Amino acid sequence: MKIKKAEMAGFCFGVKRAIELALKEAQVNSGVYTLGPLIHNPQVIERLKAKGINPFEISALPSDIKTAVIRTHGVSREINEYLNSLGIKVIDATCPFVKKAQQYAKLLHEEGYQVLILGDANHPEVVGIKSYAGPDAIVVSEPEEIVKLRKRVGVVVQTTQPVEKLQRLLERAITLCKELKVYNTICNSTAQRLKETAELAGSVDVMLVIGGRNSANTTQLARLCESIGVRTYHIETADELRDEWFNGVESVGVTAGASTPDWIIEDIINKLTGLREEDDKG
Amino acid sequence: MKIKKAEMAGFCFGVKRAIELALKEAQVNSGVYTLGPLIHNPQVIERLKAKGINPFEISALPSDIKTAVIRTHGVSREINEYLNSLGIKVIDATCPFVKKAQQYAKLLHEEGYQVLILGDANHPEVVGIKSYAGPDAIVVSEPEEIVKLRKRVGVVVQTTQPVEKLQRLLERAITLCKELKVYNTICNSTAQRLKETAELAGSVDVMLVIGGRNSANTTQLARLCESIGVRTYHIETADELRDEWFNGVESVGVTAGASTPDWIIEDIINKLTGLREEDDKG
Repeated sequence: MKIKKAEMAGFCFGVKRAIELALKEAQVNSGVYTLGPLIHNPQVIERLKAKGINPFEISALPSDIKTAVIRTHGVSREINEYLNSLGIKVIDATCPFVKKAQQYAKLLHEEGYQVLILGDANHPEVVGIKSYAGPDAIVVSEPEEIVKLRKRVGVVVQTTQPVEKLQRLLERAITLCKELKVYNTICNSTAQRLKETAELAGSVDVMLVIGGRNSANTTQLARLCESIGVRTYHIETADELRDEWFNGVESVGVTAGASTPDWIIEDIINKLTGLREEDDKG
Repeated sequence: MKIKKAEMAGFCFGVKRAIELALKEAQVNSGVYTLGPLIHNPQVIERLKAKGINPFEISALPSDIKTAVIRTHGVSREINEYLNSLGIKVIDATCPFVKKAQQYAKLLHEEGYQVLILGDANHPEVVGIKSYAGPDAIVVSEPEEIVKLRKRVGVVVQTTQPVEKLQRLLERAITLCKELKVYNTICNSTAQRLKETAELAGSVDVMLVIGGRNSANTTQLARLCESIGVRTYHIETADELRDEWFNGVESVGVTAGASTPDWIIEDIINKLTGLREEDDKG
């Protein structure tokens, strides 16, 4: 059985940076908390807990908190201000690409544009971006949802959206407004990961998509593989692998979301290699 | 035989305005010249000549010129400056929508955008717009022609382009740049005329498209009708009508370009009505 791993599988730049910032702080200080789970991967969160880094909720401030880490998705303007008013240390680990989307949303609003955000309205990243976009901002996850726009419209995009959706959004928006200013805030590594995964999925018998079940970008990868018609398994750890998935399978593709650590991917590849060797013997 | 006339057939706002400006000037002054034919309709140009309004070429300034009229398509920044340096009266009959496209091109260039113009590079309107768009501006008539763009791109559109082409342009441009500012400078009356003509063409046996053979927007209407699969004749005057075109025809659609005067359209409708009456008798 041939194992093909996507080059872009696993931690992106923003996630790597956030974990490093949190670990560095925990080396020198106690009372380090992240606002919500730092990334959408339960196994990484367990490891961070072991190092004294715990998640907290905004409504229940831990009594011993000394440092609050803002996670990659970023937070709303209001929560950012609230955290900074507490007199504790605040480490902003917002992904720099998400930060840019927030800043562009703010700029567009200041320039008098109605801000149109392409993304999932319930995703923390989008909630954060929207808080900078002014009271007339709208969020759509499908271009068809747009019914009416003001004359001057500014677009920003949740960093993990596929570019095809942005293209369809522009196609529709330009017929409903006169001036359109677009910041393509889609993260390149997301786009490349999707592209690479699609190519891989088209060339194998089975796809393994590794990452948190609560990770939107991992789920997006799994859906993409399914849409290509390849048998796909979305798993979090090597424990979930089942021998029978690989009966008669000649090639398996492995990809992983931006919040999936290398050690989980390696675990899984090792177990797959074991299966292959048994297969070769048999 | 049923005759259906498009509501939007004939003179648009900009053309009407230009002719009125020229005629008004010729009523009070002699030596009124238009830089190139005022509009792309030979029959109208003949009527203007009869009123003492003649076209001139920039390379051959008439000795008795007192007033130069800039036509609806507008002129380049250089020619505008040249005309204003001559010490004669200059009447700027540039269509206000074209003027806006020129101003947006200038603004985008001043804001540091690479200006991308969708249109026909040889059309006087586009030549004029481009002169305001800075040295790195590019003109494409098909989105596929774009190979490479700078990071920040500003788009303006020749006023007579179809919106579908602008949509395809945006779809392509957003994958080649990071920031895209678009002024949809497509003239509504052009868009509506195209839409109405398409609907009409889909409901008749024969289409007559009336207007100068040198009129780009009339030619565009004729091509649109042909693409829908209806038998189409592009004519300039009633003289060109042929009885045999209407043998066994139950319905004929009539449309006309933005530079086609009402009296030509009426002439043709009258002649068609005559044919119909003969037909009814026969």
